[in-house]
Amino acid sequence: MKKILVLGAGLSSAYLIKYLLQHASKEKWQVIVADAQVGSAKNKIGKSKYGLAIELNITEAKARQKWIQESDIVVSLLPPSLHILAAQDCLTFKKNLVTASYLSEEMKALHPKVLQANVLFLNEIGLDPGIDHLSAMEIIHSIQAKGGTIDSFESYCGGLVAPEFDDNPWNYKFTWNPRNVVLAGQATARYLKDGLLKFIPPNRIFSQIQQFKIGKLGTFDAYANRDSLSYIEPYGIGSAQTVLRGTLRRKGFCEAWDCLVKLGLTDDSYYLPQTENLTYRELVCAFLQVKNTSDAELELANFLSIKKSSALFKKIIWLGLLNDTKIDLPEATPAQALQKLLQEKWKLKENELDQIIMLHKVTYTLNNKKQSLSSHLVVNGESVAFSAMAKTVGLPMGIACKLILQNKIKAKGVQIPLSKEFYEPILKELKNYQIEFVEGK
Amino acid sequence: MKKILVLGAGLSSAYLIKYLLQHASKEKWQVIVADAQVGSAKNKIGKSKYGLAIELNITEAKARQKWIQESDIVVSLLPPSLHILAAQDCLTFKKNLVTASYLSEEMKALHPKVLQANVLFLNEIGLDPGIDHLSAMEIIHSIQAKGGTIDSFESYCGGLVAPEFDDNPWNYKFTWNPRNVVLAGQATARYLKDGLLKFIPPNRIFSQIQQFKIGKLGTFDAYANRDSLSYIEPYGIGSAQTVLRGTLRRKGFCEAWDCLVKLGLTDDSYYLPQTENLTYRELVCAFLQVKNTSDAELELANFLSIKKSSALFKKIIWLGLLNDTKIDLPEATPAQALQKLLQEKWKLKENELDQIIMLHKVTYTLNNKKQSLSSHLVVNGESVAFSAMAKTVGLPMGIACKLILQNKIKAKGVQIPLSKEFYEPILKELKNYQIEFVEGK
Repeated sequence: MKKILVLGAGLSSAYLIKYLLQHASKEKWQVIVADAQVGSAKNKIGKSKYGLAIELNITEAKARQKWIQESDIVVSLLPPSLHILAAQDCLTFKKNLVTASYLSEEMKALHPKVLQANVLFLNEIGLDPGIDHLSAMEIIHSIQAKGGTIDSFESYCGGLVAPEFDDNPWNYKFTWNPRNVVLAGQATARYLKDGLLKFIPPNRIFSQIQQFKIGKLGTFDAYANRDSLSYIEPYGIGSAQTVLRGTLRRKGFCEAWDCLVKLGLTDDSYYLPQTENLTYRELVCAFLQVKNTSDAELELANFLSIKKSSALFKKIIWLGLLNDTKIDLPEATPAQALQKLLQEKWKLKENELDQIIMLHKVTYTLNNKKQSLSSHLVVNGESVAFSAMAKTVGLPMGIACKLILQNKIKAKGVQIPLSKEFYEPILKELKNYQIEFVEGK
Repeated sequence: MKKILVLGAGLSSAYLIKYLLQHASKEKWQVIVADAQVGSAKNKIGKSKYGLAIELNITEAKARQKWIQESDIVVSLLPPSLHILAAQDCLTFKKNLVTASYLSEEMKALHPKVLQANVLFLNEIGLDPGIDHLSAMEIIHSIQAKGGTIDSFESYCGGLVAPEFDDNPWNYKFTWNPRNVVLAGQATARYLKDGLLKFIPPNRIFSQIQQFKIGKLGTFDAYANRDSLSYIEPYGIGSAQTVLRGTLRRKGFCEAWDCLVKLGLTDDSYYLPQTENLTYRELVCAFLQVKNTSDAELELANFLSIKKSSALFKKIIWLGLLNDTKIDLPEATPAQALQKLLQEKWKLKENELDQIIMLHKVTYTLNNKKQSLSSHLVVNGESVAFSAMAKTVGLPMGIACKLILQNKIKAKGVQIPLSKEFYEPILKELKNYQIEFVEGK
């Protein structure tokens, strides 16, 4: 009997735990799900006799260490900053660790010790990062194996509302952490384009966008992610003249979001005064040169250089930004005030489902011929708990967990899943769950 | 014999130390100047028999505590983040402390303990903050004493190059910490205007400016400082419908600096790749949508919506931003790369002098009549060491130091100089040094 310790039974855990429990009988696993709210853990396990729900406050070292010591592998769904607590104990007790989070500098620094302990700390094995790495590396290696060289590599991903529930003027609803959405694009985007370094500062990220059609899914906006340059070396695509990773939104989203950024509403660096009584209308007026809040509509349209009758203006107004509603928060940054409003307006309702879209666009030279390849993935949610996001984040983690326990992964140390021993079996198994890339325009 | 311990013998210390030594004989003081480079300290003391230069690494607790214990008052010219080291020891040994830095939260938290120790930790007693508080409070209290109410309060300050050495197209040279100048305006400016809250996000701070003439000094740009709202309560001007503090530059500076901000060159949040070999031209091109660096001039002009023949464009080019010069730094953020270039171009030469300008504009109601008052200060540097900045930062500290040692200041605890016992004697003595406000347009 091998013991899998899952830390955290929140948003992304449903599919992961379901997968682990489904394989528990054959693989002889016990799946221990730990959460500060034991109810969440129990709820995810249901009636499975292979599951054990425990109450665990992750900052209590003694209890945490006891459970980690008893396990064979730890899957951490904790907030990124807390992975390190689990990591240090996994090192002490020589246990494998799996997370879907970006590899932190802190985690990276453990590599020599983890190697020495002869275990694997696998990070970035969710959707993005995760499936993006697996699918990109499969494409890149297959081209290189034929003797081709990569000329350009672009990759885009978006967590969206499924088309059948896409019924608001923004064509967007929150399907994941709202705070991350509100704070997106606050760092300069860096990438390579036609052999030249390119930087887009935060105030231009949502205006310097691309638009393209994906299959029959429609037209999308794509804005550039923070740091695409850092992928060149690990992906082994030093030959590429263009390397860009971006985020997908439905057409028109970025233009409208850009208005909120330009106004200053996404700023998270200071607290607004008197947010218990301040209204959204007053907040917006504070960012405009209005002398009287009754001029807000006109001044906002002037500031944005658009007409009050335009669809774009109506989209902004639809959010309720010019309503006399109080922000009604004891303390709030502009971004937090905005998020509160958006969480009402962009709420994914009980019966509504999400959709994940990922797209890779690659050009390469093979036998002196320029060629191009486009590959995309669409995953639809099945229910609120079994969302497309929970599925695409949870399944790669679950599969990786199984492969590690089966000793089918040889890598040790602190890793991200770039090599064939990761992408080949994981992408293969993901197909059983309708997570499959489609090539072509 | 009372002992004054001056921590730091850098840029701002010359005038302070000169003042203290001049008064040492009459006041029976020993002035101990501590610096990691004892040469700097010796240099400032010269041949005075009242001075003692010592070598002190401020992070070495034992040595620091020994000297603080022996002193009657400590004047900290350390970098702001290090004041707390001196403050903690001053608390232990019940010594007074004087700094010209903004009151930090850390320092503020010591207030009850400092009160209990019955000593004074006086902060913000330099120029800005410092003389701004003293002069503002004198004006505000004198109006209020007559029964008037403040309707608006605006205050501006600038550290500039003296007009006779103002010989570059930007009408600006570095007369103080260049890094602070490059990173200015990176936080949303917050103020009150005609009874309404106003916020200016970083990307608009240098375009949403004011311009005005000051006396016979010429026309100036004024951009809004970070947080003017926080002054309403301590200044006791809750009646004011407009409260704004800003920074002065000579006319045209802000429009040109705005171009650098919009490009993205003032970003300090990420490191550029390969800054040893990257050229300034390539750096600027990275922020533009150019396909070939030979198009840089045209694309830059297009991006800024100005003509290549315009004075503004020439101002940007004059900096060397489109030169093929390597940045030649092992590691640099865009802001650091820009700073390196500016430090060459905006260097205040050996024989060149600086100028400080401060301006208060107040309107008030007295006997049902609306009235206005304008008051400004101009200070010119005397030499590189005895600059206007060193003078206006150092003298208020020195005078405060004297008043505290003479027991003429009754305030205890952690304070900033807002009350009459500070501004009356300090402003009076500053007049002896030609630091004097002039009323009128």
